Amino acid sequence: MRRVLVTGASGFVGRAALAALRARGYEIHGVARAAADVDVDVWHAADFLDSASAERVVRAAEASHLLHLAWTTAHGRYWSDPANLAWARATLHVVELFAERGGVRAVMCGSCAQYDWATSTIGPSGLLHEASTPRRPASLYGAAKQATSDLLVAWSRTVGLSAAVALLFFPYGPFEKQGRLVPSVARHLLAGEAAPISAGTQIRDFIHVADCGAALAALVDSDVSGSVNIGSGRGSSVADVATTIAGILDREELLRIGALPADESGHAAVADVTRLRDELGFVPRYDLGGGLRDAVDFWRLRTS
Amino acid sequence: MRRVLVTGASGFVGRAALAALRARGYEIHGVARAAADVDVDVWHAADFLDSASAERVVRAAEASHLLHLAWTTAHGRYWSDPANLAWARATLHVVELFAERGGVRAVMCGSCAQYDWATSTIGPSGLLHEASTPRRPASLYGAAKQATSDLLVAWSRTVGLSAAVALLFFPYGPFEKQGRLVPSVARHLLAGEAAPISAGTQIRDFIHVADCGAALAALVDSDVSGSVNIGSGRGSSVADVATTIAGILDREELLRIGALPADESGHAAVADVTRLRDELGFVPRYDLGGGLRDAVDFWRLRTS
Repeated sequence: MRRVLVTGASGFVGRAALAALRARGYEIHGVARAAADVDVDVWHAADFLDSASAERVVRAAEASHLLHLAWTTAHGRYWSDPANLAWARATLHVVELFAERGGVRAVMCGSCAQYDWATSTIGPSGLLHEASTPRRPASLYGAAKQATSDLLVAWSRTVGLSAAVALLFFPYGPFEKQGRLVPSVARHLLAGEAAPISAGTQIRDFIHVADCGAALAALVDSDVSGSVNIGSGRGSSVADVATTIAGILDREELLRIGALPADESGHAAVADVTRLRDELGFVPRYDLGGGLRDAVDFWRLRTS
Repeated sequence: MRRVLVTGASGFVGRAALAALRARGYEIHGVARAAADVDVDVWHAADFLDSASAERVVRAAEASHLLHLAWTTAHGRYWSDPANLAWARATLHVVELFAERGGVRAVMCGSCAQYDWATSTIGPSGLLHEASTPRRPASLYGAAKQATSDLLVAWSRTVGLSAAVALLFFPYGPFEKQGRLVPSVARHLLAGEAAPISAGTQIRDFIHVADCGAALAALVDSDVSGSVNIGSGRGSSVADVATTIAGILDREELLRIGALPADESGHAAVADVTRLRDELGFVPRYDLGGGLRDAVDFWRLRTS
């Protein structure tokens, strides 16, 4: 029996991962602070920052697989949220408990923020690569994810647990937090309001959250170890994304590029997807245009 | 009032640190799993792997300073002990609790095992340097110490806690575990038995534990942040150390160099002590010959 315990199951990425795990035939135990309207077989309401609750849930679930997504995610604040320390502790704890209870395969959610984004350290391809790009996180969030990843990979090898770290790039799509780029631009334009963004020159690897969820499910369902980039492999500027949304909605005149302060967090962050493609056989379903149309449709239904 | 909470206070390094902290006028709260015959003002018996016990002790101590030394140290086994994960969690927890309770200065004990010991990455000086030598631990122990150090340094900056990580090289001296190099050779020779060691070509930075304790106390008593090497700055081969001990005891004929399997863990590990010397003003009291004479005297008293 393949039973997966998914933490952060009601979150933006969690919802998408549940659908993809379901499609692969997993029995799903979901956990989050509050029960939510998502497709799981068994729901556990628990705050994983409380170690006794985490222990109770891991014991009750008796899962063979673990997808640990829960972490502090407060928009704009998570980069330097002191709770990153507690989430690192909680992550180490849940994987330790899971292995003790006979779990065989664990995937935790890392971030492209674990890489050094300084252009000088990015190879000739301009892509961030799991093995060759230095990890030198600029934020507490990145440092906490990196420390947790490194330790879990080393520990898992020692105790014989199959484990991987998914380094997420920039997922967008249904259920994204409303203050973030895609929902913010789409909702302003859908309401007929001006949509302010930064100069938007920074290049990011945007991936539709359904593709992100499918890649996570493929990683859970594999024996690939160490860290794996989860991205599209293509870079787009923030201004491109906003302009594409405005084009879909035919409201280019409401876009205010440069109205918000510039984002200083490095110029380019694009995934080398060799591992994702070759070792997991993963091919994304959406290109940027198709993915943004899907996201705009979601926000249109939500705001009408 | 300057009150320091010392975890692992009854251990080999802990005992030496207590004496040096006392000399600097600190009121000392010590904690370890079992009470021991050491010089503290208040003793707390607690297992820091139990989070409720850790919380109880940190609350009770209300210390302004923290020196966190407790970690898994079982000789020969700690390199790959799965408990390294639990000790990383416990370390993050105790520093978090300490800061929440108003603590102002925390020092945790790291290790030279956090560095990449491959000679290719060591600079022209042949020394391991805090800022420029890559951290690429070869063991779970090193990975756990490195992950914990990185995260604590990043977190401390965010929350405004003054914090440092002491990267210990190779302390030796009174109360060292008997299976380790110096006690093993000294005790065999004192008993008139053959003393087997490896070929002993690997170069290590040996530091008398009293100097190590004094350096730790100086670090606690400072505002120096980030990681600081705690070593003598001089490399000696393992064979040199054994030969020096044999010379002190005039039992060279009992030394069996090459009788044990070779140590494969890198050729040289010697500290760049620029930070220790210039930022902490620390000067070691012992050279290798004097330090080994002190250690031999300790074991002579213990075995007679």
